[in-house]
Amino acid sequence: MLNAVPTKENILEAEKRIKKFIHRTPILTSESINGISGAKLFFKCENFQKVGAFKFRGATNAILSLPKEELSRGVATHSSGNHAAALSLAAIMNGVPAYIVMPKTAPKIKIDAVKEYGGIITFCEPTLEARETELKKVVEKTGATFVHPYDNYDIIAGQATCAKEIIESVENIDYILAPVGGGGLLSGTALSAKYFGENIKVSAAEPEGADDAFRSLRDGKIYPSTDPNTIADGLLTSLSEKTFEIIENNVEEIITVSDEEIIYAMRMIWERMKIIVEPSSAVTLAAVLKQKTKFADKKIALILSGGNVDLENLPF
Amino acid sequence: MLNAVPTKENILEAEKRIKKFIHRTPILTSESINGISGAKLFFKCENFQKVGAFKFRGATNAILSLPKEELSRGVATHSSGNHAAALSLAAIMNGVPAYIVMPKTAPKIKIDAVKEYGGIITFCEPTLEARETELKKVVEKTGATFVHPYDNYDIIAGQATCAKEIIESVENIDYILAPVGGGGLLSGTALSAKYFGENIKVSAAEPEGADDAFRSLRDGKIYPSTDPNTIADGLLTSLSEKTFEIIENNVEEIITVSDEEIIYAMRMIWERMKIIVEPSSAVTLAAVLKQKTKFADKKIALILSGGNVDLENLPF
Repeated sequence: MLNAVPTKENILEAEKRIKKFIHRTPILTSESINGISGAKLFFKCENFQKVGAFKFRGATNAILSLPKEELSRGVATHSSGNHAAALSLAAIMNGVPAYIVMPKTAPKIKIDAVKEYGGIITFCEPTLEARETELKKVVEKTGATFVHPYDNYDIIAGQATCAKEIIESVENIDYILAPVGGGGLLSGTALSAKYFGENIKVSAAEPEGADDAFRSLRDGKIYPSTDPNTIADGLLTSLSEKTFEIIENNVEEIITVSDEEIIYAMRMIWERMKIIVEPSSAVTLAAVLKQKTKFADKKIALILSGGNVDLENLPF
Repeated sequence: MLNAVPTKENILEAEKRIKKFIHRTPILTSESINGISGAKLFFKCENFQKVGAFKFRGATNAILSLPKEELSRGVATHSSGNHAAALSLAAIMNGVPAYIVMPKTAPKIKIDAVKEYGGIITFCEPTLEARETELKKVVEKTGATFVHPYDNYDIIAGQATCAKEIIESVENIDYILAPVGGGGLLSGTALSAKYFGENIKVSAAEPEGADDAFRSLRDGKIYPSTDPNTIADGLLTSLSEKTFEIIENNVEEIITVSDEEIIYAMRMIWERMKIIVEPSSAVTLAAVLKQKTKFADKKIALILSGGNVDLENLPF
């Protein structure tokens, strides 16, 4: 268990640890989107990762980093999204229970995903306070270890393996772009770019309706994400101390995009590439299309963070 | 230009001819769909082919097989589907015009696709007679060569390259399953299995609402597809003399599936594999799920024929 910003060695260890559990996801290109954007784009398909999201990397690394006895009591988290599903599957693959606290108003599709992956759900009122209280109770009762979705260096080291794979597969990248919500993927990406890349700039994209990370980076202090309003439901959370520190020191810029721009980019990926990505995955392409001059002719890797959508509730 | 059933040598030549124009599409697997079906499935992703469908293989081979002078006058077809888009792109990549006769009632999304790939559209009344009359006029006026979507041995040899790639990539396959509409893909698949495989059985899947090929194979004579009614809009056409002969001699069985089964399988592919396939692509998985006992533990390649759907008109 890491208690400081992951080193190069820590990320190499994380990679070794999770290798046989995760998919090395493909990197796809699209001539037509290259034509439209004027850039050379490489899409890292974490929508094809287990549980349909990059979160499985971090969750697996966090679980495998726990001391044996601690691990045997299981893990717990409060989340209604991909982290809950990822932690559930990573736990069951290692033969331990995952306790998931979810608001009772969570969409059925998310509840079903956690159930399918074997998570043990406790429902609570849909407030942050109720979630935290309920989680505390669950942890006290079971002895499970709380695994935060991103304010956790083992999680960050796990997410970092994604950018490492990109750097190994594509030569001479100018930029890696990742979405930013809580900052776990972004901070891991920035670390891998620094350790394993040569002059690779890392930027992020964020919805205008949840632009707390943009403002935090601009003003040098963490703003909480209050009343976020965006279709990119994976990017609603605030930065944490651990992710903010890494992002402040290693990320070039955060580009904000409107929901309209996100939906346009998402549709372009669906129609041109014939793959399913969730709205949160499309913010990076939206950012490239918004800043065509900046990115013209650049070689850019975009992390498609996940592919979990409700097919009965699409924005088009 | 071939005037008899393609030989092994013909298919090797077709492959060499089209190689630099087409994508060698990936073959994907899904642990969860393997679990549900009880079989070992290998999905050949022609939804990722240029123009989003296998049709680009045959169209490219047909165009490159034309004598130079004939080719210079261009090609023509009547179609509102993937063949029209494929012929248009293959033509423009070779610097010649493609004349497409389309019913004026064709969906805007299909008209736009043909336009995007540079096809020159002539609209006609939505009857078979009007199509043929209009096509004849276009051919007379321009000197273009009519390229039938499947009753054409060069087309068949081009489609055959898809199964050849499967056989090269996956060892010890028991079955290759392809959808059947006009039979171009299916007959090419059967020929490649015979020439390049070892004891590979080829079967097909067809919508119950357009089961003319099933009845044709059963009764040993071609039934026209009259008033087909299915969501699988790529499988509405009848077998032709050329495709029927090959299918009768080389295909084990045609399995029919209902639209409900097609939509269920299509949704499974979207949700589990995070890729976009059109309804016609999902008939083969629907057939496997329908005949679980027959296919239990078998190694089966399924050709996902295309990924062109109207996102504003999905069946779920």
